[in-house]
Amino acid sequence: MSQSEALQNRFEKIRSNKVFELFVVGIIIFSAVMIGARTYDVPDSVSRVVFFLDWFITIFFLCEITIRFLGEKNKKDFFKQAWNIFDTVIVIVSLVPVEDSELAIVGRLIRIFRVLRMVSIIPELRMLLNSLIKALPRLGYVALLMFIIFYIYAAIGATFFSEINPSLWGDIALSLLTLFRVMTFEDWTDVMYETMEVYGYSWFYYLTFIFFTAFAFLNMIIGIVVNVLEEEHQEQSRLDGEPTMAEVYQELQELKALLKQQNPQTESIPKE
Amino acid sequence: MSQSEALQNRFEKIRSNKVFELFVVGIIIFSAVMIGARTYDVPDSVSRVVFFLDWFITIFFLCEITIRFLGEKNKKDFFKQAWNIFDTVIVIVSLVPVEDSELAIVGRLIRIFRVLRMVSIIPELRMLLNSLIKALPRLGYVALLMFIIFYIYAAIGATFFSEINPSLWGDIALSLLTLFRVMTFEDWTDVMYETMEVYGYSWFYYLTFIFFTAFAFLNMIIGIVVNVLEEEHQEQSRLDGEPTMAEVYQELQELKALLKQQNPQTESIPKE
Amino acid sequence: MSQSEALQNRFEKIRSNKVFELFVVGIIIFSAVMIGARTYDVPDSVSRVVFFLDWFITIFFLCEITIRFLGEKNKKDFFKQAWNIFDTVIVIVSLVPVEDSELAIVGRLIRIFRVLRMVSIIPELRMLLNSLIKALPRLGYVALLMFIIFYIYAAIGATFFSEINPSLWGDIALSLLTLFRVMTFEDWTDVMYETMEVYGYSWFYYLTFIFFTAFAFLNMIIGIVVNVLEEEHQEQSRLDGEPTMAEVYQELQELKALLKQQNPQTESIPKE
Amino acid sequence: MSQSEALQNRFEKIRSNKVFELFVVGIIIFSAVMIGARTYDVPDSVSRVVFFLDWFITIFFLCEITIRFLGEKNKKDFFKQAWNIFDTVIVIVSLVPVEDSELAIVGRLIRIFRVLRMVSIIPELRMLLNSLIKALPRLGYVALLMFIIFYIYAAIGATFFSEINPSLWGDIALSLLTLFRVMTFEDWTDVMYETMEVYGYSWFYYLTFIFFTAFAFLNMIIGIVVNVLEEEHQEQSRLDGEPTMAEVYQELQELKALLKQQNPQTESIPKE
Repeated sequence: MSQSEALQNRFEKIRSNKVFELFVVGIIIFSAVMIGARTYDVPDSVSRVVFFLDWFITIFFLCEITIRFLGEKNKKDFFKQAWNIFDTVIVIVSLVPVEDSELAIVGRLIRIFRVLRMVSIIPELRMLLNSLIKALPRLGYVALLMFIIFYIYAAIGATFFSEINPSLWGDIALSLLTLFRVMTFEDWTDVMYETMEVYGYSWFYYLTFIFFTAFAFLNMIIGIVVNVLEEEHQEQSRLDGEPTMAEVYQELQELKALLKQQNPQTESIPKE
Repeated sequence: MSQSEALQNRFEKIRSNKVFELFVVGIIIFSAVMIGARTYDVPDSVSRVVFFLDWFITIFFLCEITIRFLGEKNKKDFFKQAWNIFDTVIVIVSLVPVEDSELAIVGRLIRIFRVLRMVSIIPELRMLLNSLIKALPRLGYVALLMFIIFYIYAAIGATFFSEINPSLWGDIALSLLTLFRVMTFEDWTDVMYETMEVYGYSWFYYLTFIFFTAFAFLNMIIGIVVNVLEEEHQEQSRLDGEPTMAEVYQELQELKALLKQQNPQTESIPKE
Repeated sequence: MSQSEALQNRFEKIRSNKVFELFVVGIIIFSAVMIGARTYDVPDSVSRVVFFLDWFITIFFLCEITIRFLGEKNKKDFFKQAWNIFDTVIVIVSLVPVEDSELAIVGRLIRIFRVLRMVSIIPELRMLLNSLIKALPRLGYVALLMFIIFYIYAAIGATFFSEINPSLWGDIALSLLTLFRVMTFEDWTDVMYETMEVYGYSWFYYLTFIFFTAFAFLNMIIGIVVNVLEEEHQEQSRLDGEPTMAEVYQELQELKALLKQQNPQTESIPKE
Repeated sequence: MSQSEALQNRFEKIRSNKVFELFVVGIIIFSAVMIGARTYDVPDSVSRVVFFLDWFITIFFLCEITIRFLGEKNKKDFFKQAWNIFDTVIVIVSLVPVEDSELAIVGRLIRIFRVLRMVSIIPELRMLLNSLIKALPRLGYVALLMFIIFYIYAAIGATFFSEINPSLWGDIALSLLTLFRVMTFEDWTDVMYETMEVYGYSWFYYLTFIFFTAFAFLNMIIGIVVNVLEEEHQEQSRLDGEPTMAEVYQELQELKALLKQQNPQTESIPKE
């Protein structure tokens, strides 16, 4: 099996080769540019070239994934990383030949998602995304509270305003969308003036909603900032190897004990 | 009375039972889904099922509140918690049978507010809301200052622009609403261009208003951030049991005194 | 002159009386409510009552200012406080009887500005406003930089787009207003689409402008937050009487010197 | 060469003269005002005066740059500063006489950019701009991630919505512009309602896009704030000459060693 091992070593080398990585990044950018180019009206000849280039990219990505897979010592570890699974799925699905209109759209979407491979290739982007995902749970309860506010207001809106403008307040799903629109301040006064003609005091509904969401949003941001600063603070003091106040205090206590030990008589009755 | 005590213990156990809590949360979510479902046009048969399910929820909540109440050792303590009062009112009011159109709306509103029981059940949400309410007084004076700015601008607007567009500037209440709209940047230039046709320099009115409110708003946010950070800082140092700088200093002073005591001659005239 | 002194003491007492202050605040709120009431269409009888109440308020404020002035020990100090000057001007100008249409507006404006007396009466608001004004100079250079960005873009806009839409880009003043509108994102795409019909690449103009202003704005906010936090930090450590790290270090050095002094032989050659 | 040296000294003196600097700032402001004046319709006579004043400013700036250049000891150092190159290019290009329509616009643009010389003259603005430019690389990866999000959404938009509204989603460039518009919340619901008529679930596309960009944006801001605070913190502790916790700890260790040295017997077996 020494030949197979030699092969794997070679694959591992290719895989961690900087030039190979840059080349892959280049191909991804090229595939992204081609996706962009396809959205323009292009003559048939160009379209055919694009078609062949697309197959070249697909096959290149297949080779690249194969190299990565073969370069992995323990084959099981390969699928333990979410990004590897993502890459494999994208490559395999884009291999399926799609011609008829329905699936053609899926094929095009898969080709678009190939741009996301940029994130899986560049480690800095991968780290950034991981840290973003880590930040999500923090938002959990505030998001739940915000959803409750949204839901209650949407239920009230769908109950009272559904006959005024069914396209905005027809059911609870539409009301939720309309409230999201109000939260982004997008023509919210048009929505309000319309209901104010029937319910003169409905401005109260909109203003309280805006205050509640703005307030919850503000608290969410402040919460995140405080959390981030705290984590940074703790991490930094750990990284610096900087002794904590408690350690200094401990040290002082020991010094005091040492001093008292040396002159035990001074301990009980201080004399001049 | 041992039988009654045994009963209370049982209620207390049910009350603090995790499964019971989850079941209540489930029923609240179910009631929220039903409120949403009602906003769609549903056939009569479904409507009747919803009606009976609604009564089931109402009675379930009545039982739950009763269990909570009986599970409380000191009955008076039960009504000392604002959330318990809120829950009881919601449950009792939803018991009143409402059929005629006027009160039916109140009944529906009460059913919508049942979603808020989610906050009263989940401790994390209750804590979050309490901390939000605690943050309110901080905003007090800035809110007052902002209201004074709004009021003065609204009075000026209602005085000068009321004849240009009575629906926007007709009286001080409408002017306040219009200014709130301007603050959210919602089609504010339409409002401005209209008055600029009569008063060419009215852009000054809008720009100063935007600057004042933006500035006051910015200061409010910064004030909150600073407050929150300070509180966090103090709380953290207390929680960690980390000695303060003052304590370390105090310790050092004591050490010095100890040293001087041991060799009193070194105190007055330092000799080599 | 003991009679005059006794009078002054009495005025001083009235002035610092809490009930008197609350009464003045009450009258200011009452005058604010009346300003609001005047913006509604009111019957003639009410209008006449309002007229007399207005004179009552004017005279009350005159008395109040007189009491404040007489209650001041050193008369010159009275006019050293900006708020006192503001109050006096507001009161004196509102004394001038205005009937003809031109000046009537000035009279109404003065009455509106009486609401600002709230700030001059309530110390917390006065402090808040002072701290806001103190924060202004910090913004100085960023504001200048922002104005330069605005001016250059306005000059470019007025040069290229003035013939496309003279009401938006006619001259540099209009262009500045239009750019402010773009900065608030208020229908900015309408402005852009209009010029893009003539200059296809004018989206570059708008996007760079939005990026520059957003970036400058972001830096302004961050600068303020950092400044405020620093100031808070310094002030807090001073207020707490918390010793600084430098003081602790100093103390340690002294301790060391003391120790070495006691056993001078250990200083040069450490022996066991 | 003493005469040449004397001349250079004189130029150096002029260059660092505060009055000279203020005069240059004055001329720049004057040129900015003239650029503004030109955007108004002015009578021919004024136009001719402006033309001559413009030549005066151009020649003044030429002299000023020459003085600066001659005042520099090492001529090569002059072009090492980016701002000097900027100034020289602006001055030289505005010397070229432009009359025909095409180049006249370039000439006017150059005159507008003369306002930027304000930044090159006032050191505080130069520093501010440098610090802004320094802050840019921090945004690098988040900006890249944001661009990937934009590009993927634009590709999807151009694929599915191009037939619904070609002026908004016709190709990937237009889609990118439309998405930027959606991010600024500018009439985004109009864009959404249009596509929702064909694809009922396209609200999902807009809402996820808004969430992703808002989330990435939020993280970018928090990242900057944390970075800035850290830098400030480090810089401050360095500037204050404040000893670090580690130094205090080190000092304590030395004290302990000193104490143990003095009474070596206490080291191993602590006795009372």
